[in-house]
Parts: sequence; structure tokens; C-alpha cells
Amino acid sequence: MGNKVGIVGIGMTKFGEHWNKGLRELIVEAGLKAVHDANLTGEEIQAIYGGCMAPGLFVGQEHISALIADHVGLGGIPSTRVEAACASGGLALRQAYLAVRSGRLNVVVAGGVEKMTDVPTNLATVALMGAGDEEWEGFYGATFPGLYALMARRHMYEFGTTREQLAMVAVKNHHNGAMNPSAQFQYEITVDKVLKSAPVADPLTLLDCSPITDGAASVILASEEKAKKIAKETGKEIIWIASSGQASDTLALHDRDSLCKTKAAVLAGKEAYQQAGIKPGDIGFAEVHDCFTIAEIMAIEGLGFCNFGEGGKITENGETAVNGRIPVNTSGGLKAKGHPIGATGIAQAIEATLQLRGEAGGRQVKNPKYGLTHNVGGSGATCVVHIFTNEY
Amino acid sequence: MGNKVGIVGIGMTKFGEHWNKGLRELIVEAGLKAVHDANLTGEEIQAIYGGCMAPGLFVGQEHISALIADHVGLGGIPSTRVEAACASGGLALRQAYLAVRSGRLNVVVAGGVEKMTDVPTNLATVALMGAGDEEWEGFYGATFPGLYALMARRHMYEFGTTREQLAMVAVKNHHNGAMNPSAQFQYEITVDKVLKSAPVADPLTLLDCSPITDGAASVILASEEKAKKIAKETGKEIIWIASSGQASDTLALHDRDSLCKTKAAVLAGKEAYQQAGIKPGDIGFAEVHDCFTIAEIMAIEGLGFCNFGEGGKITENGETAVNGRIPVNTSGGLKAKGHPIGATGIAQAIEATLQLRGEAGGRQVKNPKYGLTHNVGGSGATCVVHIFTNEY
Repeated sequence: MGNKVGIVGIGMTKFGEHWNKGLRELIVEAGLKAVHDANLTGEEIQAIYGGCMAPGLFVGQEHISALIADHVGLGGIPSTRVEAACASGGLALRQAYLAVRSGRLNVVVAGGVEKMTDVPTNLATVALMGAGDEEWEGFYGATFPGLYALMARRHMYEFGTTREQLAMVAVKNHHNGAMNPSAQFQYEITVDKVLKSAPVADPLTLLDCSPITDGAASVILASEEKAKKIAKETGKEIIWIASSGQASDTLALHDRDSLCKTKAAVLAGKEAYQQAGIKPGDIGFAEVHDCFTIAEIMAIEGLGFCNFGEGGKITENGETAVNGRIPVNTSGGLKAKGHPIGATGIAQAIEATLQLRGEAGGRQVKNPKYGLTHNVGGSGATCVVHIFTNEY
Repeated sequence: MGNKVGIVGIGMTKFGEHWNKGLRELIVEAGLKAVHDANLTGEEIQAIYGGCMAPGLFVGQEHISALIADHVGLGGIPSTRVEAACASGGLALRQAYLAVRSGRLNVVVAGGVEKMTDVPTNLATVALMGAGDEEWEGFYGATFPGLYALMARRHMYEFGTTREQLAMVAVKNHHNGAMNPSAQFQYEITVDKVLKSAPVADPLTLLDCSPITDGAASVILASEEKAKKIAKETGKEIIWIASSGQASDTLALHDRDSLCKTKAAVLAGKEAYQQAGIKPGDIGFAEVHDCFTIAEIMAIEGLGFCNFGEGGKITENGETAVNGRIPVNTSGGLKAKGHPIGATGIAQAIEATLQLRGEAGGRQVKNPKYGLTHNVGGSGATCVVHIFTNEY
């Protein structure tokens, strides 16, 4: 099955509106924090995988891979950008994981970044719509909130999910985000506030939607031998990547069998559970892709934390709270932590590392053994799932 | 060293101006041709790696990975886009190669695509400048022809390379392109014509520059066992990937020790030669990244086919012609075959396959044993080198 792969260093910028920082400053800050966390020198790093969605549209810069290697000062090493819309970060993590797992390399960085402010709002909407089907959705005026609103309406119709249950996802995630010093929104909200916030795409209001965010995040992966050597020096617990799953679905929403069952998540989750030899019930906490509140509900159903149609109910029952049966988005999720597209999948891995190291502060889950991350591209056309553990 | 990896199928669209075809039609055409060449069914393909540089800017579509899997009809399999500007295709090939070499997968598609026409010319120039350093080059008005013109001037100054020698690269590549039914420009030109064509960035004229092109290309890679099984059915020779090298240089030109020695090409070439256990003298032909005529001259120097500074001379002597000592760009190169950014690295691998299979028609090199491809991102910040062989 390949070699063991451990996380030995993590680093991220605060997520938020960084009016005084550009793409490269964000990258350097997150990269150096991770290198320091692992107590490494640059010469030990052998390759970089970076996730970024639309830097060409946001800041006129493609070729981010070379920019990262150059500006973090890592010189001639191979550097590769991967992109799958909002799943770009998770996909970068997966490529780095596979490179170490293959036995070919023993220290690899996976990073992610997006600089989204300082552009006109309509450009951001156009750029983000590039994650869906431009010819069959974007061209006809569909936006991402619009696509997720369709899914929400269908979910309400099919399963009786209530408007309030959607809002409760945002309330829970803001509650958690208030305890996360890296989060964009560190304050609580109420169901009433969500319902009364500005409508975006009915039934979704502003507070059902993840924000526009600047940010970068990076993790350092190492082979078993190297990880143990590094951990001896840093004194930090190695967090192992137990498995990685990736799957695809149709790009356009209308081509799917169901509007509210996410095929790619089901497939990627199944692959990850199988590889790790565990079941959904073994997962101690999960970071899932709540770009909109309905997305979290569909995610926890697709990943098997409850039956299809019950995602709203278990949210209402408090089962996904930090102290619940299956804590979901203890970091605040995309909703409260923020969603700098390319960085999101890596930030999820950082939350998993913090939780499994026992360094999550006020939002710490009690003695988790396995954590799961779920990163989605577009309206579900790409899904990447990773499982992490501190027991191996 | 990992498992052997063979090319068992190739497919590409004609390169050129496809006014009646969009991104997805190009992808489907190239993908299906490769699948037919390998006589495969879709179910046998386990993963896709796709190279594309700037689809967000060119056609408003990111998330190309999911688009490919969806529109080629491959359903839920993992699909990953990689981007390193003009080296995106070579990088996709490398990721696919590593996936098969790791033993994890046995049939993987590597593809590349770019749809560049049907956009305003100034948008194309802006999009392409995203391959360089937007903050330190693009913002101040630098364009890609401008950057390569700087390199050309310096090469002429340092080594006495002549304006005519630059032109001879274009003349040779048009001569070869005239024998390639997939090429955008299938006609001969003369040195005089190059010198008298419209100036673009002095000393480079229009005929020193590769064109704006639409196109897609794909290759199917298989593990040794699977490749032999497929070859038995198709009767086609398996072309093996002997090695793969990747390296980085600074994103901006002004940060380099030399304007006309390409560090990333030297490093990536060295890695590829070492892995394959051969020397530059063993290479029977090379497809190199001639986005501008000067780029071919710097490439053949960096890859060790001659000493630094002698690239112009060996071009003038005919050593890089189809029947020369080291045939370069028998396909017509980027200059005559065309340069649909993301597809270029894959199209180079297709020419290598055709040459090593002995299927290159009028431009066939005599009994080559090793072929090399050299794919560059930006002004040299990323370089990917592959070596192919029919003897293994």
C-alpha cells in the first residue's frame, strides 16, 4: 500500500481581508510558518504542490508553482500547481501525499492560496463561476449561490429539511469560528439573524454563504523515517495521513441523477474509508466543505455520518457540535473561518492536525483518533477526502 | 526506480485556428483519438491528468479536470488539472507518469488543451504574461516577446549569435512543419522573409514567434504488464518513458545569474539523463520549446547538444535538421506546428512516439533509439524534460 506519510509542520495566515498583502506575501507567510513549525531548513524540502483556483482572473498571475518556489526561496526544486476549483488545496495535499507515499521523495510541501479581495465583486462572481459549467450554466446567468439554492430547495422538498436547519449550520460554525484565532469571522450569530440577513439566492441569505477571503496555508509532509527524525527535534506529535480519496461528478448540475446527493463525495469517501480500514462511525471529527449551509448538510450525509435526508435533523439535534456525536467544522468551516479558495483544503488539514495534536484550544474535541477532511470543487464535480490519525 | 511506463495510445487535433470548436470539443476529439489508438474502453482508464494554462482568462472556465472527465465520458474517476504556464502539458505528462510508475495505477491519461482564438488579442497578451512575473514584469509593461527579445540581444552580445541564425531556426521548423499534417503552418519560409516580417520586439519579428493556436493532445500511459497486453491487441510498438525531470528557476528574468542560460532546463535535463542512464550524445532527436527562435537556441545549449553559445552555429551548420547530427523539432516545433499552451508538452510526446514508432512520414529520423522533449513555462521558471525510447 505504499509508505506511511506524516504531517510534521503546519502554517497559515489569518484568513480575512488582507488589503495590505498580495498573493506572494500570503504564500511566504504561510510557507515560512510551516517550515518553522517543522524546524526544517529549505534545503531539506524536495518538491512543492500548490493549490490555487483563479489567480489569472483575480490578480493576473498564472504559473503560481514557480512563484511559490521562487518567493519562499526554495530555488530549483520541482513545483507544481494543481487546480480543481475550490478543491484545489485538497488536491495539492493529495499529490504531495502520493509523491511521499510512492517512496520517491521524503519531504514535500503542500500549500494553497487565494487572493480574492482588491477586485471588483462582479469579477469575483465571474471567476468563481469558472468552477461550474461555463457554457451550460454560467453563460445563462447561473451563479454559485444560485446553483446551491437549487440544491437547497430540492433538499427541503425531498426530505423536509427546514430553513431554520440550514441557518443552524451557520450558527454552529460561527460559534466555532469565534474560538479560532485564524478565522475571518470570530463572532456568534443567531438563527434569526441568518433568516433576516440579505437574500442572495432564495432560500439562501448572506449568512448562509461563505465569504470572499484572502489567505494561504501550508503543510509539510514527510516519510515515516524522516517524520520521526523531525518529530524528535520539534517534540511535536506526528499526524499521519491514513488515506486519500478523489472522485469526479458531472461538471453541470443538470446532468446529475440527483440534485442533492453528491456522487463524488460518496465515491471519494468510500475510497478513503476503505484505504484507512475504518467506518464513518470511527471518525472523531470532520472538516467539510460548507461553502453554503446546504453544502454541509449534503456533505455529512454523503460521508455517511447520517442517512440521506437526515443532515438537517442531526444539525438541529446538536450532533455536529464540538461536543456532539460527530463534531463538524470545529474550525468554523468555510462559513466563519473564511474561504480563500485554493487554501481551503490545506486549512482543513491544519485543523485536523491541531485537533489530533490536542492544540485546538477552546474548540478541542475530546481525544479524537481519526479526523476527516472533505474538500469540494464547483457544485460537486470534484471531491477529495483525506483521513488523518494520531494512532498508527 | 519504480515500474516501467509505456505510451500505448496517442491522439491530437490539428493545431490551428478552430473557429467552430470550443475547449470541450477539442478535448473530446483528442481524447477519443487516443482511446481508439490504444483500442481501449473507457472503463479501463483509472485517472486523468490535464494541462491547461489560462482557461479562466481565455474562455471563463476553470475546473478543466472535471470538464475533461465529464465530457470524455469517463465518469467518476479522479481527474487533476496541473498548470505551469506553457509547461502545463509536460507537467501533466509527468504527473501521469509518476502515478503509473508508483505502481498505484496501471492506465492513466495525460492530456493538454488550450483554446486561444475567439478572444481579443490584448487579452491573449495579458493572459500569456501571467506566465511571467505579474508584479515585477507585467505591471511595468513587459510582454513575452519583450522578455525573449532581451534574452536574444544578450545572446547575440555574449556569443556573437547572428540575427540570421535566429531566423534559421524558424526556417528549419517551417520546413519540418510542412511535412506534418497536424501543423498549423504547413509551408516553407526563408531567412529573408523572417528578417523582413513585421517587428514584434526587436530583434524578434513576427516569424520568430510561435503563433496563437487552438488545440488539444492526449497520450495514454500504461504499466509494463498492461502496456504489453494492449500492444498485443493494437499491434503498435510500445514507446517507453525512460525518465522525467522537472526543475524551477526564478519567476522574473532579472533575478537570474544569466539572461541566456536556462538553469531549470540544465537541472531538469541532468535529472532526465541520469535517470535514463544516457548522455546528450545518445539522443536521436529532440522536441524543444521554441516559443521564440532564441528559445530553441538556448534550449539545445542547456540540454547539452552543444556548448553554451554554439546554438546559433549548429543551427546554421544544419546539425539540427531532420537529417542532421541532432534533429530538433521535426514536428515543426511550437513555431510551425503551433502552440496551444497547455497542449504543447503532450504534442511533443506525441511527436516522440511517432518518431520512435517510425510513423513520422516525410520528417522521419533514421532509426532513433532515444527521443527527448523539453517543455518550458514562462521565460524559463519551470522546465520539464522527458526521455522516450523504443528499446528497453
